Amino acid sequence: MTSPVRPYITLTTDFGLKDHFVGTMKGVIINISPFVRIIDISHQITPQDIDEAGFVLECAYKYFPPYTINVVVVAPEVGSARKPLLVVSDRYYFIAPDNGVLSFLYNNEEEPVKVIEINAEHYFLESPGFTFHGRDIFAPVAAWLSKGIDITNFGIETENYVKRAIPKPEVFGKDLIRGRVAHIDKFGNIISNIKRSHIDELAAKTGKGKFEIHIKDIKIGSLNQFYAQGDRGKPNAVINSNGYVEIYCYMGNAKEALKAVKGDEVGVVIK
Amino acid sequence: MTSPVRPYITLTTDFGLKDHFVGTMKGVIINISPFVRIIDISHQITPQDIDEAGFVLECAYKYFPPYTINVVVVAPEVGSARKPLLVVSDRYYFIAPDNGVLSFLYNNEEEPVKVIEINAEHYFLESPGFTFHGRDIFAPVAAWLSKGIDITNFGIETENYVKRAIPKPEVFGKDLIRGRVAHIDKFGNIISNIKRSHIDELAAKTGKGKFEIHIKDIKIGSLNQFYAQGDRGKPNAVINSNGYVEIYCYMGNAKEALKAVKGDEVGVVIK
Amino acid sequence: MTSPVRPYITLTTDFGLKDHFVGTMKGVIINISPFVRIIDISHQITPQDIDEAGFVLECAYKYFPPYTINVVVVAPEVGSARKPLLVVSDRYYFIAPDNGVLSFLYNNEEEPVKVIEINAEHYFLESPGFTFHGRDIFAPVAAWLSKGIDITNFGIETENYVKRAIPKPEVFGKDLIRGRVAHIDKFGNIISNIKRSHIDELAAKTGKGKFEIHIKDIKIGSLNQFYAQGDRGKPNAVINSNGYVEIYCYMGNAKEALKAVKGDEVGVVIK
Repeated sequence: MTSPVRPYITLTTDFGLKDHFVGTMKGVIINISPFVRIIDISHQITPQDIDEAGFVLECAYKYFPPYTINVVVVAPEVGSARKPLLVVSDRYYFIAPDNGVLSFLYNNEEEPVKVIEINAEHYFLESPGFTFHGRDIFAPVAAWLSKGIDITNFGIETENYVKRAIPKPEVFGKDLIRGRVAHIDKFGNIISNIKRSHIDELAAKTGKGKFEIHIKDIKIGSLNQFYAQGDRGKPNAVINSNGYVEIYCYMGNAKEALKAVKGDEVGVVIK
Repeated sequence: MTSPVRPYITLTTDFGLKDHFVGTMKGVIINISPFVRIIDISHQITPQDIDEAGFVLECAYKYFPPYTINVVVVAPEVGSARKPLLVVSDRYYFIAPDNGVLSFLYNNEEEPVKVIEINAEHYFLESPGFTFHGRDIFAPVAAWLSKGIDITNFGIETENYVKRAIPKPEVFGKDLIRGRVAHIDKFGNIISNIKRSHIDELAAKTGKGKFEIHIKDIKIGSLNQFYAQGDRGKPNAVINSNGYVEIYCYMGNAKEALKAVKGDEVGVVIK
Repeated sequence: MTSPVRPYITLTTDFGLKDHFVGTMKGVIINISPFVRIIDISHQITPQDIDEAGFVLECAYKYFPPYTINVVVVAPEVGSARKPLLVVSDRYYFIAPDNGVLSFLYNNEEEPVKVIEINAEHYFLESPGFTFHGRDIFAPVAAWLSKGIDITNFGIETENYVKRAIPKPEVFGKDLIRGRVAHIDKFGNIISNIKRSHIDELAAKTGKGKFEIHIKDIKIGSLNQFYAQGDRGKPNAVINSNGYVEIYCYMGNAKEALKAVKGDEVGVVIK
């Protein structure tokens, strides 16, 4: 048999690409599971930014083949008593620290998960120090899982794990949706947590069809279908590839133009 | 059959490595074509710099196995009416936006190409938004192509596509070649568009064997064979690995020393 | 036969990820050895920093499967008369310039090596210029080696190769170990060249069990087991994943807090 049972492992970390960390994790994985394929999602997560790691993985994981194993290592409290988790949905596996980085999954009713506290230390690497769980725990567990080891062998199911609140947009009065900036991408595009469907629902209730998007004292009166419809030199809005309202500057950088940061308020007023 | 008919896909984008974009594209590809191998050429193209993307791909693609599929996503006008193209030469496939990024190919008489406007939307991914053609169009088309789908199934041949002028060096009088800085690499080495063969041809015509390279009021009197022959602390020139005149500072950074930018004039005077 | 005899090649370079260099090398490799797997260790080595490249590879290579081929291209004197080397230990292959980047191996008595000066030019790529040995020499030699070519075909064994002194900690008097900062990672963690075993040996000799770590006028009185044990807002120490004393700031950046640079002195005083 040359093919692993679960043939793909993705990696999402804040390790960067300068040090040996990512290469070393890959060495550990292929040493155990020589035919598994490893795909990088990101190693440039802002150091210890759990929310950003969750956001990035949430955008990507559904596009991978079923049974893909998604490893996340973004862990300010690495090495502490916090156990690593193996989280299993109908279609995917996730291996991550118990710090809430997978809250986007825990909060997703369409994809219920089983959460296993990993305690099967015989799968871990022996190590002179305890600072690199990516190498010593996450990589070997992912590799053994890829070979078909049953999930029950890695630990015990638990309901006691860390969930982070992910801000959701709220409706105020009859005509206002208040959301937040959830992420800013490398082009400076500002991604809110307001979905097209939030707008459509409220518009249907009010019977009104127009709306305005508010951010940082700027009003944007309409949604474009694609970036190139935008006016140059002023902010525009679009429904992005994941269904969210996104503010951008065509051929420019909206983050810089608006001095926006993650967490800033974004409003939609139905008119 | 475990092996795809066209087993390699390369990626050249301006997506960077921090966001989910590249990982997501790879997920889409392997979900359709599980055994294809994906090789990154660059994801650090300067945002929306079509010429830089073309330069980088031109340097790399000939070193890949025949039938490699080269995907380029650098597209300021993403989502607009511009169709994606499938460009086919004797040995390679290219999937790119119709914005002239492949002009290095269109201008290359040694490698004639067929240009197909991709319109077979049944190969595209359905999406809540239209801002991520890399995921929804380029990735799945490349994946289906890797599985052996005939090129005629993706669209119709066209002769109406965008070509960008790529500056070529010109000869003035009997003894002057005027070229441009085509690229500056990460070491600060300044790569001109003047080839060794341009110099040799003019030298043969004039019957003279010496020459001087001029850039930014600096004169360089000779060509080294390799970097280490250069004098430290002043600019030197070499024929680089693609056959072009390149100005460098040994153990230093020529871009910074000369304050050079892409497009600056480079001259060669035969003496 | 679909599988190469030596199925993995790792790459460690200072090429960065913006230019075509790394992609081109991979193209060359798979063009010769279509089924070999290529794993990036780092392409973000500080330009021409031989010591850093050696440090990063030393941390990573032992985690890879036996017979992995490790290619290093960090070479200020690229193209000069210096020959490329093929270095062979019991378990691993290394292809690198003869500039001492593999000194961590030459100095390692537990893993004796054979050093071969590569001179078999028929394995090299023909090239219009001599500035990209990564593409023209290192990549094709690694690819042919992966296919099972006997090492003796690549050149002749030599004992005349460049060794760099790697600073080792020294013991002064009865109670002082003086070491150096060997590396600073991307989190700002300061990695010394002092091992836990150095401390234990001296403590055993003196019969004392306590010690203090000194760096930059700061004293740290104990070693934590993992990062999260550290006090926020002041420097802490830990034995890191490779067994070395590492100074860090929990949830902070020790490099910035201490203004530390590579080479700074680190002391351990047994008390």
